[in-house]
Amino acid sequence: MTRRLELHPDRLFPADPATRAIARSLYATVATLPIVSPHGHTDPRWFATDAPWTDATSLLLAPDHYLFRMLYSQGISLDALAIPSRAGQPATDPRAAWRVLAEHYPLFRGTPSRLWLDHVFTQVFGLDVALEAATADLYFDAIGEALATPAFRPRALFDRFHIDFLATTEGAQDDLDAHHAIRASGWQGRVVTTYRPDGVIDVEHEQFAGAMRRFAELTNEDVGSWQGYLAAHRRRRADFRAAGATATDHGHPSARTANLSTAECEALFARITGGTWDAADAELFRGQMLTEMARMSAEDGMVMQIHPGSFRNHNAGLFASHGRDKGADIPMRTDYVAALKPMLDVVGTDPNLTIILFTLDESAYARELAPLAGHYPCLKLGPAWWFHDSPEGMRRFREMTTETAGFYNTVGFNDDTRAFLSIPARHDVARRVDCAFLARLVAEHRLEDWEAAELAQELTSGLVRRAYRLDGGIGATA
Amino acid sequence: MTRRLELHPDRLFPADPATRAIARSLYATVATLPIVSPHGHTDPRWFATDAPWTDATSLLLAPDHYLFRMLYSQGISLDALAIPSRAGQPATDPRAAWRVLAEHYPLFRGTPSRLWLDHVFTQVFGLDVALEAATADLYFDAIGEALATPAFRPRALFDRFHIDFLATTEGAQDDLDAHHAIRASGWQGRVVTTYRPDGVIDVEHEQFAGAMRRFAELTNEDVGSWQGYLAAHRRRRADFRAAGATATDHGHPSARTANLSTAECEALFARITGGTWDAADAELFRGQMLTEMARMSAEDGMVMQIHPGSFRNHNAGLFASHGRDKGADIPMRTDYVAALKPMLDVVGTDPNLTIILFTLDESAYARELAPLAGHYPCLKLGPAWWFHDSPEGMRRFREMTTETAGFYNTVGFNDDTRAFLSIPARHDVARRVDCAFLARLVAEHRLEDWEAAELAQELTSGLVRRAYRLDGGIGATA
Amino acid sequence: MTRRLELHPDRLFPADPATRAIARSLYATVATLPIVSPHGHTDPRWFATDAPWTDATSLLLAPDHYLFRMLYSQGISLDALAIPSRAGQPATDPRAAWRVLAEHYPLFRGTPSRLWLDHVFTQVFGLDVALEAATADLYFDAIGEALATPAFRPRALFDRFHIDFLATTEGAQDDLDAHHAIRASGWQGRVVTTYRPDGVIDVEHEQFAGAMRRFAELTNEDVGSWQGYLAAHRRRRADFRAAGATATDHGHPSARTANLSTAECEALFARITGGTWDAADAELFRGQMLTEMARMSAEDGMVMQIHPGSFRNHNAGLFASHGRDKGADIPMRTDYVAALKPMLDVVGTDPNLTIILFTLDESAYARELAPLAGHYPCLKLGPAWWFHDSPEGMRRFREMTTETAGFYNTVGFNDDTRAFLSIPARHDVARRVDCAFLARLVAEHRLEDWEAAELAQELTSGLVRRAYRLDGGIGATA
Repeated sequence: MTRRLELHPDRLFPADPATRAIARSLYATVATLPIVSPHGHTDPRWFATDAPWTDATSLLLAPDHYLFRMLYSQGISLDALAIPSRAGQPATDPRAAWRVLAEHYPLFRGTPSRLWLDHVFTQVFGLDVALEAATADLYFDAIGEALATPAFRPRALFDRFHIDFLATTEGAQDDLDAHHAIRASGWQGRVVTTYRPDGVIDVEHEQFAGAMRRFAELTNEDVGSWQGYLAAHRRRRADFRAAGATATDHGHPSARTANLSTAECEALFARITGGTWDAADAELFRGQMLTEMARMSAEDGMVMQIHPGSFRNHNAGLFASHGRDKGADIPMRTDYVAALKPMLDVVGTDPNLTIILFTLDESAYARELAPLAGHYPCLKLGPAWWFHDSPEGMRRFREMTTETAGFYNTVGFNDDTRAFLSIPARHDVARRVDCAFLARLVAEHRLEDWEAAELAQELTSGLVRRAYRLDGGIGATA
Repeated sequence: MTRRLELHPDRLFPADPATRAIARSLYATVATLPIVSPHGHTDPRWFATDAPWTDATSLLLAPDHYLFRMLYSQGISLDALAIPSRAGQPATDPRAAWRVLAEHYPLFRGTPSRLWLDHVFTQVFGLDVALEAATADLYFDAIGEALATPAFRPRALFDRFHIDFLATTEGAQDDLDAHHAIRASGWQGRVVTTYRPDGVIDVEHEQFAGAMRRFAELTNEDVGSWQGYLAAHRRRRADFRAAGATATDHGHPSARTANLSTAECEALFARITGGTWDAADAELFRGQMLTEMARMSAEDGMVMQIHPGSFRNHNAGLFASHGRDKGADIPMRTDYVAALKPMLDVVGTDPNLTIILFTLDESAYARELAPLAGHYPCLKLGPAWWFHDSPEGMRRFREMTTETAGFYNTVGFNDDTRAFLSIPARHDVARRVDCAFLARLVAEHRLEDWEAAELAQELTSGLVRRAYRLDGGIGATA
Repeated sequence: MTRRLELHPDRLFPADPATRAIARSLYATVATLPIVSPHGHTDPRWFATDAPWTDATSLLLAPDHYLFRMLYSQGISLDALAIPSRAGQPATDPRAAWRVLAEHYPLFRGTPSRLWLDHVFTQVFGLDVALEAATADLYFDAIGEALATPAFRPRALFDRFHIDFLATTEGAQDDLDAHHAIRASGWQGRVVTTYRPDGVIDVEHEQFAGAMRRFAELTNEDVGSWQGYLAAHRRRRADFRAAGATATDHGHPSARTANLSTAECEALFARITGGTWDAADAELFRGQMLTEMARMSAEDGMVMQIHPGSFRNHNAGLFASHGRDKGADIPMRTDYVAALKPMLDVVGTDPNLTIILFTLDESAYARELAPLAGHYPCLKLGPAWWFHDSPEGMRRFREMTTETAGFYNTVGFNDDTRAFLSIPARHDVARRVDCAFLARLVAEHRLEDWEAAELAQELTSGLVRRAYRLDGGIGATA
């Protein structure tokens, strides 16, 4: 006997009846608003080619490190899940891999992955039985058949999902061909890029040298000199703006910034490019480049996002066999107060600049980030990120930031995902959790109902559009 | 159309009806108890001269860094808010500044400032429409008119607010004239001082040299020698006690303490006064002085308060233009376990000494502070402080400290404010949040109702009176 | 007039009626399941000799540092509580000590100790009036009389408590005589040991030299050589397995691990045994030994428990007068991400190894521990520990770990207690808090009711039995 699968209309709302009623009515006003996704990692080639996806495993399991890391944590090999290694794609049958997921689906109880997947299963594919060993093949077949139809092509789903804006992320060494193809195609979906120069800033990345060569080719600048290197960044930022970008993104090990003199920058850059750097130089250079990027953002209007604090590729054995992005990135304690001061000494009081801060260290929310964002004109708080993009994580974010930073120094929701089909699910969870939080404030008479209604709109739509400059300035002129 | 403004009698109580009913009945037993304010920053000259305040902006906006930092974070200049800079008072019309606050009042949704202000508007001034652009002038006029009447003079409000005890904070270099004038006036309000010697302890403060000169003049001690410097502290502590002080206060960058030999102290002090100190010396000296102050407290009975962990004047540009206390103090991660050990090795087991610890780093509540206060006879926990003096912050304080430290190692509420009119509002929020917490314990059958009723009294009145020694010992003999 | 004492059947369940009903029905399915206690500190001699306990003070107060540290924090001397010092047992009458506890019982309001004690009083001793000054003698007499009867002997209570498995903890230098006596007695209770080698690993422990001598005697190995020392560990691990152990336990100041070459190990060990070590060597050696223990666990199947982050004996005066374990151990900030990497580089991907991590630093739950356990095959999360083994602490544990690690990377409950009579109380609190958490997920439609029912069984019984290998592998072959 299989179990029915159905999403409850009151899911994620508080159990108290009065509070739930408020949450429900707030949610009703934002449930169907268009999706604005200003930060994520979907593949722009999907929208450029509009080619169909092939099967449940390659679409839903293989790219989703939330899923396979949990299975891996319970002793299941990545080969059994059809995850590519450095040696290439394993011979595993996609259907067999899907069955492994189905058999182990209880592992995801209590996790956001479970909420997202059930949403995809019911709302995108119309499935009405729960995923378990007995239904694995039914799922695999139903999903495969759907994907073969025109209604499940990337652009058709983009429309069906009511996506108003979708940003992908590309490196400074990327030629942006997929984005050019999207624009050349005449398709009206607004899919834009984001400038992420980490590959040409982090000398400790194993592909730094290759990225720098490509950076030089794409810009015709002398990237071996400090001034030429900065000029190359300016050129590429302009290229990215021409491809619709309104933002940059920086994923550094720490939030360290620096404010060196030009002579110090030149000497440091010579060590970086000359191969005589040490770990302290690599860190200092990343820190100085955050300040340089902030300066350029103050000039060109691109919104700057800083995502610090992940220890990448923590599992040495897995990195050797399978490479990056295999669920082995672990958050670290992160300081912001001392780390950001050099950059803020340069740009902190510029009200025309927007720097959005993220964290994986929740202890920084109330202690450092809300006070910083509640003071500096240039700073805003990004939403609960990565491991914390979850009902409890988003609730803690609001509880620990609102009283000091208010709602208006936050920027709405980011889905930050590679899993395109989960985008509506993720935005739905965020809207529900925000409405639940607002409902509590109303129920406790800390906010009037009409104010909560205004805020629900702002948290869903207004704040993100303004913070990422989607309706003017940088966005409109690109 | 203007909106009505009304405080709901159930504000800040949990939505669950059974829990709310318990909270409501607990609150009823403490709602009108007199206010005891053992730590704050009101200006004693108000009570010495009893001169009327002039207008809403200079009374409610200009001194309140919670308000103007939020407006500043959204790109509003301090000039537009009539905040004085190093160049003096800007030409801004107070009414124009008030309109800026009114137009941006939604920024405070979800913040404690909103709760406090609405309380002041309705309960102190009897306003019954919400603050917004359309009501800005109505507010400015109504408040101005009220302030011109005798009922709104400082002493009249002190009585109306049922304040039983109010401590201000003065530096070691302060002549205490305002406090002497209060006493000489024959007015019966109990307004006392608190000994805050940071200005003559922190050699990194820009006015250290001047403070030391004044310290010497006021004490006739040789403050250039270590023994003379300590003697000067003893004299001033006696002066402060004579002006009613029962406590000292220490706002240091960290909780670092030290336990040096006399010879080491003399050598360190020679570097401090000789101008040959470095940053490590400055920190070590502050740490040694905490231990010295604790020793003196063990002798003279003054309660010692330690407020560590704020990075002061983080915004370099703003500090250059506007100076200190402009909303740019940002909390830092703070260690207590290693930091306090040298001092505790000296005085930790003295049950006649009281040291009250505060933090801006909530991660220390359950991990360090509750275990320390739940063990050492001399240690007590101060209430949720500054950024955390808010409904969520106070709830987290109770949730993270009670199970290890109990209620009886805490000390009731501090309003810690410069905003005199908000004192009843702040105490009301604290009483409501405490009653809500107690109500949950009763509703979950973790506490009997009669115990919660006893605790509500203790948290409002008993603990603070005993911890700060208001009814005997130091307090009575002053 | 004395007050009635009664445990409410709904205690610790959320107040919301719908959620409470779910919690109540989940709890009903696990309330009477046998107790599995895989980590604790009861005295095996109790079960070896089955001798009666004598009085309330020596059984309930003197061994319970949660109790006497709270009383001490309020200025009560340990002598008054009949706590032994280095000079021996004070002359204090046990009844007088019990009266001190009774008079100060309100100090425990809001603490787990209160919940545990009231459970012991009502459920174990059948008392039905509350403990207070007026009932102190009634309690002391009733408990003393009960303890003199056969039904209150250790083995009788073990059976009455439905304990299925109870692990104690012994040092590497322990002869395990009590455990041998238990086995030789023919009694069927499953009381086993746990291998805790800290005493021969931590050279900073004041009894290290004596422990090493005993370690050599018990193993006949040359513990002065690195290889002989490792061989001695292997022998003792086998001895412990023969006495039923399925696990080892490691209580280090930090989670630091190391991965040195054999030559480096030999050189370091020579400094340790030669007395030429410094603090950095001591820390490095402890770190290297965690990796060695993990390697041995991968070989012999013993489950490895790591309990880091306590600053032991923080109170210098009390340590001098009364020695260890007097409630003066204070948690410290603890890093896991960098600290564990050397060990995980060696054993991290071994799915046959189980390492259970604990923390006293709750900020690590969501940031470090859940991501680590949600990735590494060998890692699992131990339950909320020590100061956090409380209703709020256990709730935070679930809220901060479940979304990333799921339920299945956790290991059920540990009571971790010296207080044998409180074991049922502690397991009951854990079951109630877990059911309350599950009930909230069901009420918010984040989990189906049948899933919550399965999870309630797993959290009470399944996970602990599998994680600690109680039903096979190491457990069965011992």
